[in-house]
Amino acid sequence: MRVLITGFTPFGGEKINPSWEAIKRMKDNYGDIKVFKSEIPTVFNKAIYFLEEEIQRYNPDVVICTGQAGGRTAITPERVAINVNDARIPDNEGNTPIDKKIFEDGENAYFSSLPIKAIVKELKEKNIPATVSNSAGTFVCNNIMYGLLYYIDKNYENLKGGFVHIPYIHEQVVDKPNNPSMDLETIKKAFEIIIETVFRYDSDIAISDGKTR
Amino acid sequence: MRVLITGFTPFGGEKINPSWEAIKRMKDNYGDIKVFKSEIPTVFNKAIYFLEEEIQRYNPDVVICTGQAGGRTAITPERVAINVNDARIPDNEGNTPIDKKIFEDGENAYFSSLPIKAIVKELKEKNIPATVSNSAGTFVCNNIMYGLLYYIDKNYENLKGGFVHIPYIHEQVVDKPNNPSMDLETIKKAFEIIIETVFRYDSDIAISDGKTR
Amino acid sequence: MRVLITGFTPFGGEKINPSWEAIKRMKDNYGDIKVFKSEIPTVFNKAIYFLEEEIQRYNPDVVICTGQAGGRTAITPERVAINVNDARIPDNEGNTPIDKKIFEDGENAYFSSLPIKAIVKELKEKNIPATVSNSAGTFVCNNIMYGLLYYIDKNYENLKGGFVHIPYIHEQVVDKPNNPSMDLETIKKAFEIIIETVFRYDSDIAISDGKTR
Amino acid sequence: MRVLITGFTPFGGEKINPSWEAIKRMKDNYGDIKVFKSEIPTVFNKAIYFLEEEIQRYNPDVVICTGQAGGRTAITPERVAINVNDARIPDNEGNTPIDKKIFEDGENAYFSSLPIKAIVKELKEKNIPATVSNSAGTFVCNNIMYGLLYYIDKNYENLKGGFVHIPYIHEQVVDKPNNPSMDLETIKKAFEIIIETVFRYDSDIAISDGKTR
Repeated sequence: MRVLITGFTPFGGEKINPSWEAIKRMKDNYGDIKVFKSEIPTVFNKAIYFLEEEIQRYNPDVVICTGQAGGRTAITPERVAINVNDARIPDNEGNTPIDKKIFEDGENAYFSSLPIKAIVKELKEKNIPATVSNSAGTFVCNNIMYGLLYYIDKNYENLKGGFVHIPYIHEQVVDKPNNPSMDLETIKKAFEIIIETVFRYDSDIAISDGKTR
Repeated sequence: MRVLITGFTPFGGEKINPSWEAIKRMKDNYGDIKVFKSEIPTVFNKAIYFLEEEIQRYNPDVVICTGQAGGRTAITPERVAINVNDARIPDNEGNTPIDKKIFEDGENAYFSSLPIKAIVKELKEKNIPATVSNSAGTFVCNNIMYGLLYYIDKNYENLKGGFVHIPYIHEQVVDKPNNPSMDLETIKKAFEIIIETVFRYDSDIAISDGKTR
Repeated sequence: MRVLITGFTPFGGEKINPSWEAIKRMKDNYGDIKVFKSEIPTVFNKAIYFLEEEIQRYNPDVVICTGQAGGRTAITPERVAINVNDARIPDNEGNTPIDKKIFEDGENAYFSSLPIKAIVKELKEKNIPATVSNSAGTFVCNNIMYGLLYYIDKNYENLKGGFVHIPYIHEQVVDKPNNPSMDLETIKKAFEIIIETVFRYDSDIAISDGKTR
Repeated sequence: MRVLITGFTPFGGEKINPSWEAIKRMKDNYGDIKVFKSEIPTVFNKAIYFLEEEIQRYNPDVVICTGQAGGRTAITPERVAINVNDARIPDNEGNTPIDKKIFEDGENAYFSSLPIKAIVKELKEKNIPATVSNSAGTFVCNNIMYGLLYYIDKNYENLKGGFVHIPYIHEQVVDKPNNPSMDLETIKKAFEIIIETVFRYDSDIAISDGKTR
């Protein structure tokens, strides 16, 4: 069993990206599961092409993309990616697309094919705050998630994939008062639980984790 | 020019729903624009069928659905509705669907056909806090928005429509410490600006209002 | 009956201070109550001396100082002022005192002599979000509140006084996403209710409005 | 060198109190520093008498009381305790005092005699979010801090003491969406850093950590 897990390069003035910091501390194998790791450039669309090369290189069964969601308090598997790029800040090559489609021939949105409810359940049982998110934003995180699911839909029907947002880690917020953060070790542990969960559940479970807004 | 604007019945233990409170205080005409008002039951799917009857009754050019998003600080036009019902709390008839499609033959998601960026711009120019939201949740607000855009896509190609979330009003939070709220008059004024904006802009404008997460 | 109500000049890069914006829209008389208004410089200690001159000029029965507490969601009468200046940002003359006493011969703290619980009760009954605050911070708001109560303690035993913090108004947050704000008219109305309450209650009432932290 | 560090029993429906969970995992000695640990009942005034017995039993040089501040994102040494009990919820024996003085002959407030700015600096240097708080609330946390500093003022002039609030730990928030939390190990490490800092700094340092509100 082969999983490709990706993090991003730092963006928005941060010195590190907690997604990649956690991933690079992970092992290369967990039991039968072989883990391939990749640090993706935080650049609209380039992130997608970079990811596809990694998929071709490693031929994974599952792709889990991850990224920083500063301000969140929990590990948040994303439910859906939407066909739009809308930059609030420039990406790492200075691009600021506004309301541009990612793929002209893509669906309006794609749903994660990871068992997001099972992931939330397993994380919470290990005392790691987790909840489903219904928006990955409109920046490069949504961009890569959309691109991944577009490729799965078009070309890789046996591949499973999705995206997980994580909070800031502590060192990022020592000078950002009132911003929640999470320990890097906890995030790394969460990624390990997510990988294990993805291979253990053939399909997702039906537990409530909706949002009224 | 004819606009149908809808609010919801109260839900989740609230005594009022600020969306309907604001709408029922609006005038029936603003210049050439005739306003039809409807209070929709906060019930999954029934909300959609109720809405379609209202559309057939009033034959509007534009439909603006609105609802309460407790905890938000601004008027938030929604960008997108997704094809899923996932209840965190029961709706007003006790339904608690989990991860159910709204329409089997619907797209994964539909984008608002209201000029959401123009709405944000016009509201902010009148000193009303506003920003685009990228998730209407998975409760009845998303449900009706999805249903509206599904019908537009299938049967009402000349109709424009979308959804706007609003904060709590003050009276709802006097015993909910630390919850933001907005004056009812301000919300009513926001709805008037939105109606005027929808008819003034043929298409949306390209200003940044993305989210990094 | 005579009340002196004070607001502050803008600080921290803001163009206006909502406390003074609300006050300058108030009437000069409410029934038997004569209202004197003063805009105080947002400068450590100078604010206090400025205030004392106003007290001598107007000879009020009650002094209500008010100021902006960006980020709060409610009208918050302050319970207590503490004998310390500790600047997070420079005041309007560039002073940045750190952990300095305000008056060497002052108490560690003084409690408001306004009926803060009655104020909260009256505001909430008029559907204006309100709660007691237990910290006025360590900037010029705490500074003037401490100075006022110090003078009352030392020299003006018949004077009643205290401080009320207010949220941002809407126009201040249109470009500060996720910041709560309140309508200026609501704040003005709150000030009118506070003035009326202060003269109606001889002493405060015993209702719970504590905080666990 | 002897330090007494105290946590509280669970309150407000929680199953654990993170302050005591962290303390009971600490060692009994750190170098020359002998650590005495105590779990204090979350009961107004009884907490104070219980604490004084522990002080007499262990004869510490420093007393560090700690408690849970659900909703905070950082370790927060408290600057000041005020002479008031005001319960928002009942304590663990059902008491709900409203606006009662803690000690009739006490000062309005007492300032911590711990080096709170140095503590913040040292924690942040080890990448643990920390900031000074200017209010310990009006519940049992403020109660014990006030009582401790009252005793120091009256009877134990060589004793140093203060209070530190901590966030929820992860397991407390898995079903409290959007609540920040911190890893228990990080809190334990924070307590160790605080103890070490208290003995290393003879007096506090002058760095800014004020609040504008």
